[in-house]
Amino acid sequence: MTLNVPTYADVQAAAQRLKGHAHLTPVLRSRFADEMLGGEVFFKAENLQRMGAFKFRGAFNALSRFDAAQRERGVVAFSSGNHAQAVALSARILGMPAVIVMPSDAPPLKIAATRGYGAQVVLYDRYTEDREAIGKRLASERGLTLIPPYDHPDVIAGQGTAAKELVEQVGPLDYFFGCLGGGGLMGGSCLAVKALSPDCRIYGVEPEAGNDVQQSFRIGKPVRIEVPKTIADGAQTQLVGTLTFPILQRDASDILTATDQQLIEAMHFFAERMKLIVEPTGALGFAAARHAAATGSLPLKGKRIGILISGGNVDMSTFCRLISSLDGTPS
Amino acid sequence: MTLNVPTYADVQAAAQRLKGHAHLTPVLRSRFADEMLGGEVFFKAENLQRMGAFKFRGAFNALSRFDAAQRERGVVAFSSGNHAQAVALSARILGMPAVIVMPSDAPPLKIAATRGYGAQVVLYDRYTEDREAIGKRLASERGLTLIPPYDHPDVIAGQGTAAKELVEQVGPLDYFFGCLGGGGLMGGSCLAVKALSPDCRIYGVEPEAGNDVQQSFRIGKPVRIEVPKTIADGAQTQLVGTLTFPILQRDASDILTATDQQLIEAMHFFAERMKLIVEPTGALGFAAARHAAATGSLPLKGKRIGILISGGNVDMSTFCRLISSLDGTPS
Repeated sequence: MTLNVPTYADVQAAAQRLKGHAHLTPVLRSRFADEMLGGEVFFKAENLQRMGAFKFRGAFNALSRFDAAQRERGVVAFSSGNHAQAVALSARILGMPAVIVMPSDAPPLKIAATRGYGAQVVLYDRYTEDREAIGKRLASERGLTLIPPYDHPDVIAGQGTAAKELVEQVGPLDYFFGCLGGGGLMGGSCLAVKALSPDCRIYGVEPEAGNDVQQSFRIGKPVRIEVPKTIADGAQTQLVGTLTFPILQRDASDILTATDQQLIEAMHFFAERMKLIVEPTGALGFAAARHAAATGSLPLKGKRIGILISGGNVDMSTFCRLISSLDGTPS
Repeated sequence: MTLNVPTYADVQAAAQRLKGHAHLTPVLRSRFADEMLGGEVFFKAENLQRMGAFKFRGAFNALSRFDAAQRERGVVAFSSGNHAQAVALSARILGMPAVIVMPSDAPPLKIAATRGYGAQVVLYDRYTEDREAIGKRLASERGLTLIPPYDHPDVIAGQGTAAKELVEQVGPLDYFFGCLGGGGLMGGSCLAVKALSPDCRIYGVEPEAGNDVQQSFRIGKPVRIEVPKTIADGAQTQLVGTLTFPILQRDASDILTATDQQLIEAMHFFAERMKLIVEPTGALGFAAARHAAATGSLPLKGKRIGILISGGNVDMSTFCRLISSLDGTPS
C-alpha cells in the first residue's frame, strides 16, 4: 500500500471520527504570557486531552480506519511514550489487541499507563536496538498492523485536528508554534492552519540537542542524527518522516529549537502562572516563542499567537526535580 | 448600611458585571475520576481563573459597585491570600488604590503577587493579631472601603457565578461539592445551584482541623474556633459569616471535612491524572467526594457530580514538598 501525503480534507474527516472520543480541549489565556510575548497568546491545552497528550487524536483516527480482519488481529506500535498510550487506549476503546514497543528508559509513568490500558509492552534499548525493526518483525510474525508514531497519513491527519480546533475556537492567527519530533503534529497542524488561516506563519520547535528537522529543512533533504540526549523525551526522533517532511518544507516558515534549560523555565511558567503540568516536550512551542520575543528575532508585538501545548505526561518526581533545579532563577 | 443576604438575582447581576473580565473557565472531565467516584464527574477549574482562583469573581463584583467617591479613596481588604490578590487585581483594573492586610505566614507567592498587582501590603501575625480590627482601623483612618473576604453580599454573589457557569455548561447536577472557608464561595454556589438545579444535593467541605462551619451547621448557630493548623491556607477561617451561614443552613445538605493527607492525595491525582496544579484548599471538594465514594457514605453511583476546584495558588516548592511526601503511597 502506498501512503500519500494527507490533505486538509483528511484532517476534516479525522475530526468527524474523533467526535465524542477526543476531548475538545480548552484554549487558555494568560496576561503574563501576553506581556512576555507582546501579543495575544492562545494556548491550545492538549495536556488536557485524553491520556494527557494530542497523540490520542492520531492513533484513534488511524485505528478507527482498520478493517474487520485488522481489528481482529490487532495493532503494534513503537513509541517513546505518548503514542504508545494513545494506541493502547484507542485499541481498548475499539476492542482490539495491542502490542507496544517502548524504550526501556521511557518515563515509568508512561510504561505503567500503557500497560494500564491493557496493552502488551515489549521493551528495547533506545541506544542499541532499532525499534522500527522490532515493530516490523512483530507485525509480520503475528499479523499485526503497524501504526508508526508519525509517518502515516491517518496519524498526521488526526494530529491536525488539534490546530483545526484552535483556529476554530479563536479565529485566524498570525503565528503558530508547535512541538516537533518526527513531524506528525506539525505536519497535521500545517494542513489545518494553512487551510483556516492562510497567512499564519508556522514554526516547528525541536530540542536544541535534536535538531534533525532544522538541519533537514535548511539543506532541503532529510538528515539523520544520533539519538539526542534531551529532557524532551517525546522529541528524541532521529529522522523526519517521509510524509511529514514535504508538508513542513511547503508550509512551515522555519524550524526553531529550545534548550533544556528553556524548557524547564517554560514548565515553571506553566505551573506557577497557568496552573498546568506540562511535560518537557510540551513546552517546546512556548519556550521558543518566548526566546524569539526576548531576543526580538520574530516581530511578535501585537500579533495573534497560537501555541500548542502537546502533553503533560511527566512523572511527578521528574517534574519536581526539574522545577526545583530552577531555585533562585526567576521564571 | 445594612447588608442583606443576597439572592440568585444578585448572582445573575454579578455575572453581567464579570463579562469580559473573568475567564469563563473550562469544565474538565477525567475517566479516572469517574471510575473513582462511580458517577459522571464535572470539575469546574477555577484554578484556571484570572489570578489563579475564583476569588477574582467576588472581588471584582464588589469593587465594580463602588461609587465615584469610593473609587477615588480606594479599597482595603484582609485576606490569607487569594482574596488579597483578587482585590489588588480588581482595583488595578478599575483604577483605584488598594491596601491589603495579609498574614505574615501567607504563601510568599501570594504576597508577591499581591504587591505585583500594585497594592500596598500590610503584614500581621495570624496567631496574635486581629486582621479585621486592622482592616477597620485602616478603613476609618484613610477613608477606604473595606471589602471582607466572604461576609459581603457582593462578594457572595460574585463567587456564585462559578457554580452558575458550571450548571449552564453541563446541565443539572445530582451532587455539588465545593471548598468551604468562611462560606463566600459555598454561599454563592448554593444560590446558583438551587436556582438552576433545584434537586442537587450541596456539600461544603472544610479542612478537618478547621471544621467550625460543620460544628455551627450541626448545632444551628455560629461556633468560633482557634486558627486551625492545616495546609489548606485558604480555609483557615475561625467563624462562618453572618450572611453566608443562613444560606448554608437553608441550602446545604451537609458540611463535610477532609484531612491534610486526603488533600495531598487529591492534589497528586489532579497533577498526575489531570495535569492541573491545585492548591490544598482547592482540593477539598474532590477529597471529600472521593472519601464518600470509597466509604459508601454517599450514594454517588451513576450520579452527575459537580466539583469546584477553587484555586491553584501554591508555591512550587510547597507543591513539590507535599507531593513528594506521598512517595510510595498510591494515589
